[in-house]
Amino acid sequence: MLSFESDYTEGAHEKILERLIETNYESLSGYGSDPYCESAKRKIREACQCPEADIHFLVGGTQTNATVIDAVLDKYEGVVAAKTGHVSTHEAGAIEYTGHKVLALEEHQGKIVPEELEEYLKIFWADGNHEHMVFPGMVYISHPTEYGTLYSKAELREISDVCHRYEIPLYLDGARLGYGLMSSYTDVTLPDIAKYCDVFYIGGTKVGALCGEAVVFTKGNTPKHFMTIVKQHGALLAKGRLLGIQFDTLFTDNLYFEISAHANRMAEKLKGIFQKKGYEFYIDSPTNQQFIILEKKQMEQLQEKVAFSFWEALDENHIVVRFATSWATREEDVDALLEIM
Amino acid sequence: MLSFESDYTEGAHEKILERLIETNYESLSGYGSDPYCESAKRKIREACQCPEADIHFLVGGTQTNATVIDAVLDKYEGVVAAKTGHVSTHEAGAIEYTGHKVLALEEHQGKIVPEELEEYLKIFWADGNHEHMVFPGMVYISHPTEYGTLYSKAELREISDVCHRYEIPLYLDGARLGYGLMSSYTDVTLPDIAKYCDVFYIGGTKVGALCGEAVVFTKGNTPKHFMTIVKQHGALLAKGRLLGIQFDTLFTDNLYFEISAHANRMAEKLKGIFQKKGYEFYIDSPTNQQFIILEKKQMEQLQEKVAFSFWEALDENHIVVRFATSWATREEDVDALLEIM
Amino acid sequence: MLSFESDYTEGAHEKILERLIETNYESLSGYGSDPYCESAKRKIREACQCPEADIHFLVGGTQTNATVIDAVLDKYEGVVAAKTGHVSTHEAGAIEYTGHKVLALEEHQGKIVPEELEEYLKIFWADGNHEHMVFPGMVYISHPTEYGTLYSKAELREISDVCHRYEIPLYLDGARLGYGLMSSYTDVTLPDIAKYCDVFYIGGTKVGALCGEAVVFTKGNTPKHFMTIVKQHGALLAKGRLLGIQFDTLFTDNLYFEISAHANRMAEKLKGIFQKKGYEFYIDSPTNQQFIILEKKQMEQLQEKVAFSFWEALDENHIVVRFATSWATREEDVDALLEIM
Amino acid sequence: MLSFESDYTEGAHEKILERLIETNYESLSGYGSDPYCESAKRKIREACQCPEADIHFLVGGTQTNATVIDAVLDKYEGVVAAKTGHVSTHEAGAIEYTGHKVLALEEHQGKIVPEELEEYLKIFWADGNHEHMVFPGMVYISHPTEYGTLYSKAELREISDVCHRYEIPLYLDGARLGYGLMSSYTDVTLPDIAKYCDVFYIGGTKVGALCGEAVVFTKGNTPKHFMTIVKQHGALLAKGRLLGIQFDTLFTDNLYFEISAHANRMAEKLKGIFQKKGYEFYIDSPTNQQFIILEKKQMEQLQEKVAFSFWEALDENHIVVRFATSWATREEDVDALLEIM
Repeated sequence: MLSFESDYTEGAHEKILERLIETNYESLSGYGSDPYCESAKRKIREACQCPEADIHFLVGGTQTNATVIDAVLDKYEGVVAAKTGHVSTHEAGAIEYTGHKVLALEEHQGKIVPEELEEYLKIFWADGNHEHMVFPGMVYISHPTEYGTLYSKAELREISDVCHRYEIPLYLDGARLGYGLMSSYTDVTLPDIAKYCDVFYIGGTKVGALCGEAVVFTKGNTPKHFMTIVKQHGALLAKGRLLGIQFDTLFTDNLYFEISAHANRMAEKLKGIFQKKGYEFYIDSPTNQQFIILEKKQMEQLQEKVAFSFWEALDENHIVVRFATSWATREEDVDALLEIM
Repeated sequence: MLSFESDYTEGAHEKILERLIETNYESLSGYGSDPYCESAKRKIREACQCPEADIHFLVGGTQTNATVIDAVLDKYEGVVAAKTGHVSTHEAGAIEYTGHKVLALEEHQGKIVPEELEEYLKIFWADGNHEHMVFPGMVYISHPTEYGTLYSKAELREISDVCHRYEIPLYLDGARLGYGLMSSYTDVTLPDIAKYCDVFYIGGTKVGALCGEAVVFTKGNTPKHFMTIVKQHGALLAKGRLLGIQFDTLFTDNLYFEISAHANRMAEKLKGIFQKKGYEFYIDSPTNQQFIILEKKQMEQLQEKVAFSFWEALDENHIVVRFATSWATREEDVDALLEIM
Repeated sequence: MLSFESDYTEGAHEKILERLIETNYESLSGYGSDPYCESAKRKIREACQCPEADIHFLVGGTQTNATVIDAVLDKYEGVVAAKTGHVSTHEAGAIEYTGHKVLALEEHQGKIVPEELEEYLKIFWADGNHEHMVFPGMVYISHPTEYGTLYSKAELREISDVCHRYEIPLYLDGARLGYGLMSSYTDVTLPDIAKYCDVFYIGGTKVGALCGEAVVFTKGNTPKHFMTIVKQHGALLAKGRLLGIQFDTLFTDNLYFEISAHANRMAEKLKGIFQKKGYEFYIDSPTNQQFIILEKKQMEQLQEKVAFSFWEALDENHIVVRFATSWATREEDVDALLEIM
Repeated sequence: MLSFESDYTEGAHEKILERLIETNYESLSGYGSDPYCESAKRKIREACQCPEADIHFLVGGTQTNATVIDAVLDKYEGVVAAKTGHVSTHEAGAIEYTGHKVLALEEHQGKIVPEELEEYLKIFWADGNHEHMVFPGMVYISHPTEYGTLYSKAELREISDVCHRYEIPLYLDGARLGYGLMSSYTDVTLPDIAKYCDVFYIGGTKVGALCGEAVVFTKGNTPKHFMTIVKQHGALLAKGRLLGIQFDTLFTDNLYFEISAHANRMAEKLKGIFQKKGYEFYIDSPTNQQFIILEKKQMEQLQEKVAFSFWEALDENHIVVRFATSWATREEDVDALLEIM
């Protein structure tokens, strides 16, 4: 059975496992105070070209979103996000659970549009009743989005400008950041992200780690006693080494970027197969997730030999499905897919 | 200065004040355990033709919404409401503060549509990913809506049917319920509401009381230890008599209904004036709130002599404003408005 | 039946009712923006000798405590309070509901002791593990306490000094503040409280109002967008006039202080009766609440003719009961009690 | 440098690492739906002799406590725990953050006493005011406690009986459960725990895993939609395999028990060294944590060669310190300690 179900179906990159074994019997302090965490932070700061960046390691994406958003927002504030943003729809209300509203904007292929963001903020502040409303206190974007799409550098800068004009921070959810940065169709670099965002996270779970996300505060803006807030959210890992060692490995010798680039190459190849066979794409994705429209029957036939994800019903007879590649995708599997189709 | 600013700009109906004075020196137990609360509950049960109704008095609307919604929902559930519902937009995130998401549906003149509600619920349950989503655990409607509009009995029944098909309760926010029930254009009675809704509240604050809302659980479905939940929400009034006496008075000799009918008559008259003068209405409201479109200049001129509410900007040059009548509106003030126009 | 059950068993002082009637048909804006709220604030500022005081009116005590504490605390902070403090035990977890721990200190006749407070804070900050603990972010005291006792000016100053040495605000719950200020045994004035506390509230509900508490921020320290936080807590009253008019009346011609002094005189007289009859007091209270030890049989006999509160069982055979006087207590009722005993 | 700092200073048992490597490239579904999770659950059910047990894997201890407690409690309920319980003091208010109070009982060497628990529950229910209080909705115990002590089977049964008499569940925090079960001084087995507790967790993080805790609901009492609640708490791991594989390994061939027994043997040996040298123990611990009283000077000298934990200051001159052994402790390190002392 071929698997393109998601980018978290395998364990971890083997270099990570090797490093876990090598360091296994070193006796290290807990909660992120070990030298591997320090080393990983140093390397991430360098990769971001942001020497003042303050970095914290958390375990998973929803946890990171809820903890960061809650820590940054004031009590009377909510977070602005695309309707289709992960925080809006697929985190079981984890943001609202922290007491904050997700203020949903229209989405355009998974993205928000700077003009619409500005319009929203303008109307909010013009409204005489806004003291009875949730204040927009942060903007959330995902990059790549939940649909695999990417912001251009110009879009990112404009969104950042709007945020700063209205004095609210910009937060970027980089659960799949590597795949975004290594896309052939992007002009956005990691230093750009560090420059335009006030806080973002570099996803590990979906990019070669067993688990782990690296939160980066870029402007000396770490919330006071953030470690205690992380603990309060149940997000402080006792064996912080597990996260430090993984990110230290991922940010050594460009590993994070190389494995991301591999996934994108595999996605391009896979995309080519579907294009050649005349399939229609639901969205034109420049990263490792590809959304294809199948007839119900086609889907059922294909499911016998290949694992992929049901995304949504398009109409009575057509289904949107997702094929995802990853750091672990083997080229022979993509070739095998061609045979099958 | 004439005032049509809102329906809570005066104190209370004078019969309420009289009763407060008459009973002032009676020594009564606190927290809703006094005989006036009991009497008010009895009268409301009768008016609802719902002998099994369980009734609790709270102080204000946002408080009531947050307390009832939080008490009824399970931890993993949110409340479905129109985009323009009070809980969606004008309660400063009070619902999210309790940890629950407001799941917004499209609005149609302030109302939700049964078919769209059903579609939403159907898709939710069909979605393979719904365990990562907020479960719809309740439907919220306001009647009259924030735009003064009303559900017909057929609509109410259909929404109720959809809810019960999906096994979730229907909650009706009746902040202005009296004005809704006494509209010349409604076929919905208080017993209908008790029949179709699982819980609703009868608004006092905007219908002649100093403060107070009567929550009615209609199906033996009061959440366990509701009084403690009310206390936890800071919503338990020590001098419960203040609420009991007011509702007892409002539900004696049809007072609640009569003063509501008066407000509607005044609104009809006011509507007639604007119609005659050729003004355009933003929405056709059958209750005490009237939404009129003014040119900016018109608005500024009118504001010198009459108080009303800015609602929203329609375009560069036109403004939607609200004129509200109430139990306290004097006919001579409406006549005086005619003079001014 | 004589009633000494509590200080919230009657309605409101008649001057309040008169003012409500006089102002009833004035058309006033909502949410605290009316001239009566302004006037009440001015008078309270003067009574506090604190021109920079920022004042907000809320409806009830638990609501006020939860809203103020949540608004002032940072996310990682809790509030330090006596074990017997109202927030610790009798608010149904309203503080924890806002996400904050109540950090309980030993109580001494309902009070905390400056030295123990300092010791607690010292140990917290010395503890190497305190990043895994709830930070003390505020100190809560009640004055009078739940046992009717009072802090001396020296105690208040010392507690205030400790708080400020550790850079946390001091909050005073003055649900029964009038009775405390007018005690014959106190050297604490309202200006003292404004001086030593960072925020406190002047209780209305238990001192002659139908409802209402006046929150006073004394040091330019009102939390940002406090009004929105109040709304979010369901604590913003639409007809703010109800609170403004009541506090304006209470702070006109010393009414608040005079009715409090009356209650204390009645309490002294009542205390004398029990002393003369040889009853034992559970605590020596200098204010309107008196705690007396009764044998079970005595209690049952007395209950036939007098209403009072069960407080707690002392042992198999003895009960602590509370007799409360108030602004509304009639001298003839105290005299009648003497007859009965 | 010898290290007895804690039981989470090393990585993971090597068999776990081996299994991670062996299974690394298997393509498995996420969120706990993989066959390793299934297999681990089966083995845990067997070890518990509880075929109806429902098992869920979470990442860390505080996360597990907050998620389970919040999921099980009703909105008006709190959790009863010893003053020194982990949830009471060292989780940064994670329980209160979920809206629930920790109701603290006196501790006796880290344990609660059945009689005092019963007394507390009796008084709560007898109190006429309990509707204004937080309802005790669950009892939390840790086993071993934070002081390394253990409940006897009789104590466990009695506490369980009290809980069930008052119809509230008993929850056991087994962060170090292995060390408790394999103590030479216990008569409590894993099936006993499954029998007497309604829910408990088997700690992985401190007993040989990289991370992970196995929550066991023993009585068909898993909260509805628990997986969604886990997601909402940010506690659902995408690569659930990481937890499944670890627990599957730990519960294969008695590994969990053997490594726990090893730690206890090392602790006994270490204890013997301190006893022989005449040191005083702060508490008599039958498990892997040993609490020793040192003079300040002694502590400083020892710290040069051995890592251990500062616990608390006993008096001006004496310090309580903790030495912890673990699955990873090497006998030669304990021998080396003897040399040093």
